[in-house]
Amino acid sequence: MTSSVAVSGASGYAGGEILRLLAAHPEVEIRTVTAHSSAGEPLIAHQPHLRSLRHLTLQPTTPEVLAGHDVVFLALPHGQSGQYTDALQDAPLVIDAGADHRLTSPDAWDAFYGGTFHEPWAYGVPELPGGRAALVGATRIAAPGCNASTVSLSLAPGVAAGVIDSSDIVAVLAVGPSGAGKSLKTNLLAAEILGSANPYAVGGTHRHIPEIRQALVAAGATGDVRISFTPVLVPMARGILATSTAPIANGVTDAQIRDAWEQAYADEPFVQVLPEGHFPRTADVLGANTALIGLAVDRAANRVVVVTAVDNLVKGTAGAAIQSMNIALGLPEATGLTVNGVAP
Amino acid sequence: MTSSVAVSGASGYAGGEILRLLAAHPEVEIRTVTAHSSAGEPLIAHQPHLRSLRHLTLQPTTPEVLAGHDVVFLALPHGQSGQYTDALQDAPLVIDAGADHRLTSPDAWDAFYGGTFHEPWAYGVPELPGGRAALVGATRIAAPGCNASTVSLSLAPGVAAGVIDSSDIVAVLAVGPSGAGKSLKTNLLAAEILGSANPYAVGGTHRHIPEIRQALVAAGATGDVRISFTPVLVPMARGILATSTAPIANGVTDAQIRDAWEQAYADEPFVQVLPEGHFPRTADVLGANTALIGLAVDRAANRVVVVTAVDNLVKGTAGAAIQSMNIALGLPEATGLTVNGVAP
Amino acid sequence: MTSSVAVSGASGYAGGEILRLLAAHPEVEIRTVTAHSSAGEPLIAHQPHLRSLRHLTLQPTTPEVLAGHDVVFLALPHGQSGQYTDALQDAPLVIDAGADHRLTSPDAWDAFYGGTFHEPWAYGVPELPGGRAALVGATRIAAPGCNASTVSLSLAPGVAAGVIDSSDIVAVLAVGPSGAGKSLKTNLLAAEILGSANPYAVGGTHRHIPEIRQALVAAGATGDVRISFTPVLVPMARGILATSTAPIANGVTDAQIRDAWEQAYADEPFVQVLPEGHFPRTADVLGANTALIGLAVDRAANRVVVVTAVDNLVKGTAGAAIQSMNIALGLPEATGLTVNGVAP
Amino acid sequence: MTSSVAVSGASGYAGGEILRLLAAHPEVEIRTVTAHSSAGEPLIAHQPHLRSLRHLTLQPTTPEVLAGHDVVFLALPHGQSGQYTDALQDAPLVIDAGADHRLTSPDAWDAFYGGTFHEPWAYGVPELPGGRAALVGATRIAAPGCNASTVSLSLAPGVAAGVIDSSDIVAVLAVGPSGAGKSLKTNLLAAEILGSANPYAVGGTHRHIPEIRQALVAAGATGDVRISFTPVLVPMARGILATSTAPIANGVTDAQIRDAWEQAYADEPFVQVLPEGHFPRTADVLGANTALIGLAVDRAANRVVVVTAVDNLVKGTAGAAIQSMNIALGLPEATGLTVNGVAP
Repeated sequence: MTSSVAVSGASGYAGGEILRLLAAHPEVEIRTVTAHSSAGEPLIAHQPHLRSLRHLTLQPTTPEVLAGHDVVFLALPHGQSGQYTDALQDAPLVIDAGADHRLTSPDAWDAFYGGTFHEPWAYGVPELPGGRAALVGATRIAAPGCNASTVSLSLAPGVAAGVIDSSDIVAVLAVGPSGAGKSLKTNLLAAEILGSANPYAVGGTHRHIPEIRQALVAAGATGDVRISFTPVLVPMARGILATSTAPIANGVTDAQIRDAWEQAYADEPFVQVLPEGHFPRTADVLGANTALIGLAVDRAANRVVVVTAVDNLVKGTAGAAIQSMNIALGLPEATGLTVNGVAP
Repeated sequence: MTSSVAVSGASGYAGGEILRLLAAHPEVEIRTVTAHSSAGEPLIAHQPHLRSLRHLTLQPTTPEVLAGHDVVFLALPHGQSGQYTDALQDAPLVIDAGADHRLTSPDAWDAFYGGTFHEPWAYGVPELPGGRAALVGATRIAAPGCNASTVSLSLAPGVAAGVIDSSDIVAVLAVGPSGAGKSLKTNLLAAEILGSANPYAVGGTHRHIPEIRQALVAAGATGDVRISFTPVLVPMARGILATSTAPIANGVTDAQIRDAWEQAYADEPFVQVLPEGHFPRTADVLGANTALIGLAVDRAANRVVVVTAVDNLVKGTAGAAIQSMNIALGLPEATGLTVNGVAP
Repeated sequence: MTSSVAVSGASGYAGGEILRLLAAHPEVEIRTVTAHSSAGEPLIAHQPHLRSLRHLTLQPTTPEVLAGHDVVFLALPHGQSGQYTDALQDAPLVIDAGADHRLTSPDAWDAFYGGTFHEPWAYGVPELPGGRAALVGATRIAAPGCNASTVSLSLAPGVAAGVIDSSDIVAVLAVGPSGAGKSLKTNLLAAEILGSANPYAVGGTHRHIPEIRQALVAAGATGDVRISFTPVLVPMARGILATSTAPIANGVTDAQIRDAWEQAYADEPFVQVLPEGHFPRTADVLGANTALIGLAVDRAANRVVVVTAVDNLVKGTAGAAIQSMNIALGLPEATGLTVNGVAP
Repeated sequence: MTSSVAVSGASGYAGGEILRLLAAHPEVEIRTVTAHSSAGEPLIAHQPHLRSLRHLTLQPTTPEVLAGHDVVFLALPHGQSGQYTDALQDAPLVIDAGADHRLTSPDAWDAFYGGTFHEPWAYGVPELPGGRAALVGATRIAAPGCNASTVSLSLAPGVAAGVIDSSDIVAVLAVGPSGAGKSLKTNLLAAEILGSANPYAVGGTHRHIPEIRQALVAAGATGDVRISFTPVLVPMARGILATSTAPIANGVTDAQIRDAWEQAYADEPFVQVLPEGHFPRTADVLGANTALIGLAVDRAANRVVVVTAVDNLVKGTAGAAIQSMNIALGLPEATGLTVNGVAP
C-alpha cells in the first residue's frame, strides 16, 4: 500500500533530492512539500528539474502541515528539526536529514554544535555494523552526514576486523559545493569555486568528526579513535571523493586486509568494493545510491588507503534516507533507488 | 645583458608556460623553440595564447638546434632529457623540467622510474634548506616535480625544526590535469574529468614520492621518512592543493610549530605563510609563482595539517625553473615573476 | 514479453548511455554488448558507472554476434553502420545512433559527409510533425543528431504554424564535450576545455545543418531554409543549450507565436514549453529524456528567440533511441525514461 | 612621473582586477583602496590573490577619501558612480567601470536602466572608430560593458566598411559568472552553475544592448541597428565567447569582408584577427588584455559569423580602463598590460 509523504525544506538541495528519488519510488505518494520563506510558490520555481512534480505548491513548514502523513522527511538547517519532534509525535515515521538526532553523546554535541541536545535516532547507514538491524521497524531515523558516512563506510570494515589502527586516521575529502546547501555565502559563489580547490574547516573543526568517531566506536574500535579530517571544495556540483588512511595493524597480511572489506560488503548492493588496483571516480556514482570503494595497502607508508566515491546528495543524504525508509517500512531495500551512475 | 634562450618541448604545457613567463622576462631573448612531431609548424598553432610569440616557428628538437644559447630549457617527457646532456656539454646553463636529473639515489630511480640513471643536478626549489645556495652559479638545474615540491615546501620547515615526525606523513593532493601534460589518454578527456574527482597512482606508486623523501632528508629528517601520497584529479585546468599532515613531535608547543614555518619563510617572496585560521585556494596562485601555506595544529588528532596552494605549471614547474635561472645567472630572483594570482 | 537486446559500440559514450537507460527499462533484457578494440574486456572496465551490468563482457562487433536479438542498437562512428545493414536483414528492429541513415538527400549526404549514401530510416524524434506516426511499427530507426534534434524541436512549431521565417535562422549552441564521443583528440583534453569556451565547426560546416534543414522542411517550411549554426564547447560533461532565433513572420501577434509552441507540445511528456519569462538550464535535464523550451518574442530585434536545454546523451541520443524503440514495439512511450533531471 | 591612484569598490571582482593590473603597472602608485561594508578590513581578506598588496587596508568609499589622487577608479554598482561625480570635480582623471556614464541617449538610459541620467564620458574602447582620439587627454572615462565592447569590437569593422547589414544582428555569448560581480544571488551559486549552461536576460532585455547599438552607430551604421542578444552563463570563472552574426551586405566579396576586419585591426596590439579558418578560445585570453577575433563568411546562411574571445575582467573591464588611462595620461598604451593569456 502506498505511503503518503511530506517533505519539508523542499526548496533546498537535500529536499530536492529526496523529492527526485521519491518521484521514482513506486510505493509512495508525495502529498505535501513545505518550505519557509518560499511558501506559496510552486515547487518547480525552486526545483526546475523536477518536471513530474509541476503540480505541487510549497506550503509553510509547520507541524500542522506536516501532520497526518505516513512518512515525514525533515530537510532543515541544523537545530530546526528538534522543534518539530514533539509536534510530530503521532507521525508513524519521521526521517531527519539534519544533524539534530545523529549524535549519541551530549558532550560531542556541545563541542561541535552547541544548543539543545536531542535524543539520537536510528542512524541511516544500514551497511555499518548493526546498522540495518537498528532500522528495521524504526519510527525515527537520522539520515547521516554525507562526509561522515563516506568516511565511516570507508573504514568500518577495517576497524571491525581489527586490521587497522583507528588512533591515527587521516581523511581528506574532495567535495562538491551542493553539500553546503543553497546558502548565500560568498565562498559558495560560482566565480569563487570554478577553477579552484578551496579547503574549509581545516584542523579538526568539522562537525562530521564526532559522527565518524561514533560510527567507528560502534564498529568495534578499541582505544582512541583520532581523526585528522580535511574537506576541500572542488569544482563539481556533487560528489565526495574521500581518501581515508589508517595505520596497518601489527601482523596482518594484505589478504586479511582486503578480506575485511570484501566480506563486510559482499552482499551489499549499494556499497561495492572494487578489484585490487581499481579506484572509483565520483562521476561513476552521480545520481546513484552507490558507494564505491577502492583499497590499497601501502607497506612503505604502513597505511591502508581507502578511496571512496559517493554522491553526497544520494548515498550521502537522500538515498540513505530512502533506503532507510524502505527498511523501516518493510519494503525491498532497493526500491526506488539505482546503483548506476550518470556518466560521463 | 640579455641571455639567449632555447626552449625544447615548446608545444607542450610545461614548455608553453616557460615561454609565457620568459615572454615577460626583461633579461632574456627567446631565440629558439623546438618540438618533436610538430617541428615546422608555427608555435602559435600549439600555444594560441602566446600572442607575443606569433613570429616563432617550431624547430626540431636536436642537439644542434639547441646548441649555442646561453640558456637551454628541456621540457621533455622524462627519460628524454638524458640523451641531450652530453651533446649540450658546452651550454652555459641547462634547465631540465623533466625528472631525469632530480634524484640522487640510483635505487630510488630504479624503484620508481627505471632505465638509465642520470647524475643529479642542482634542485630548483630555492626555499628548501640549502636550496638557494646550491643554485648560485649552477650550470645544470633540475626543476622540481610539481607535486613533490609542493609537499616538500609544506613540510620541510617542520622537519628542519624537529616539530613534526616524518615517519608517518600523509599527503592528499587535489590536482588539475595540466600536470599530466598534453597526453592523449582517455582518462584525461574533458568528459572524464568534468564533474568528477578521479584518484590515480594510489597506494604508494607515484613517482614524486622519492623526490619528497629526498627533500625532507635534506631538510634534516632523522629516522624513517614515510609518506602516504594520494593525488586526485579535479576539474580545474591548473593548480595543486596539497593537504599534508604529520604527527606532532613530542613536547612541542603550538607556538613552536607555527614559528617553524613563519621563520623558515619570513623572507621568501614566493612562499608565504598565511595567518592562523587562514587557508589558501588554488585560484589565489593561478599564474603566479607563489606557494601559499595555511597551517593548523590539530591536538585532538595529534597532527599538524599543512594546506598549500601552488600553480603546478608556475611555482610547480616553469616558475621554479625561471626563479632558479635568475639565481644561477645572478639576476634579481623575482625577475619576470609575479606573486599575484589571477582570480577569480 | 521482454525483448532481447544487443548494443554495439558499448564502450563509448552513446553506447554507455543506451545501456544505462536500458538497465532501468522493465521490458528488455540486455543480452549482448559489443565493441571493437576492447572486445574480450569486461564492460565495467569501460563503463565503471554501470554497476548493475558488471556481469557483461564485451564481444566483437560482428554481424554474427549482433544477430538473433529482438532489438539491435548500433552506436558506431559515422560510416560504420551501413556495413551492418545487409547482414542484419533478419533483425526485427535495428536502431542506429550514427548518422548513416538520417538524411533523405544524397546530395546533402555528399556535401556534408561523403562516402556511400544509405537509405533513410524512420527518424527518431517523435515530437516533430509526423514523427511519431513514422515510428509506429518501424523496423529501422535512425536516432537523431543531438544538436540537430535540439534545434529542430526548437523551431519546428514556429515553422509549422508559419509564425517564423525559416530563411534566416541563427543557432548558437553551448555543448558539452561528451557529444564528441570518447575520441583521443587534443582539443577534447580536460586541460583544453576546463575554464574555456571553445567554438568549432564555425561558418556552416557542421554536419547537423542538413539534418535540421530536412526536419524543418518536413515541418512545413516553405521557401529557403537557411541556418547559421555555431556550436561552442563549454566545460560541462553533458548538455546542449541551444539559442535558436528566426525572424518573426509578418503580421503575427505575440500570442500567436506562443500558441504555436504551446499547442505543438501540449501533450508531449518529453518536450515542455516553460511559462513566459522562464528559460531552461542544462542541469535541469541532466540524465532526463526532456527537452525544455523557453520562448521570447523580441520585437525590437524582430526575432523569436528559443532557448532549449537537452541532455545530448539522453534526449539527444540514447533517450530518443529508446523512446523510439518503445513506439516501434508498441510499449508505453515513456517506459524506462524519466522527465526529471539530476540537479544541482 | 608616477601617478597616485585610488580604487573604489576594491573588494569586488572589477575592483580586484583593476588592482591586479595596476600592481604590475610601472607608472602608478596604488595609494588608496576603498569599499563599502568592508571598510576597515585588510584588502587581502577580500582579494587573497593580491599578495603584493598585503599592506593595504580598505577605507570607506567617500568623496573625501577618494579626493587628492591623480587617478580615481570607480568600480561600483551602476547608479552609484553618479553621486561621486560632483564631489570629484577636482580629480584630474576619473575612470568609471560602472554604466553611469556610458550612454549618450537619455532615452536609452531610461529604457534599460532608469533613474538619473548622467552625462556621457569618453568611452574606453580605443579600437573602435574614433575611440582612441576621444581618449587622448580625456579627464573622464567610462570603461565599457564587457559584453557590449566584445560585440561592438566584433562587428564595428564590418559596419564601418559597409560589408554587413546591421539591421539584423544576432549575438549569443557564453559568459563566465565573474561578470555578474560578487553578488549573493542563488543563481550565481557554484552548485547552480557547475555542469550547466544557464541563459539570462533573454529576449532583448540586457542592458548592454543600447551600448552596442550606440557603438555601431558611431562606427557608421546607417539605418536601423537591431540586435538579438542572448547571454548564457557557463561554468568558467572568467571569459566571454561572443558569436555575433550579421547578414552579408549585397554585392560584397569574401575578400572585402575579411579585409574590413584585418585592416581595422592591423595595427592594434590588443585586438587581433586570426587567420582564416581559426577561431579563438577564451582560455587563450585569460588574464590578457586581448580580444581575439575569428571570422567566417557563410554564404549558405548569407551571414558573416564573428567569434570573439575576451577576458571579461581584463579587456572587458579593468584592462580597458587601464589601457584608456594610459592613453589619457600620454603613456605608452600597452604599459602594464599583456597580450598573452594564461593557458591551459
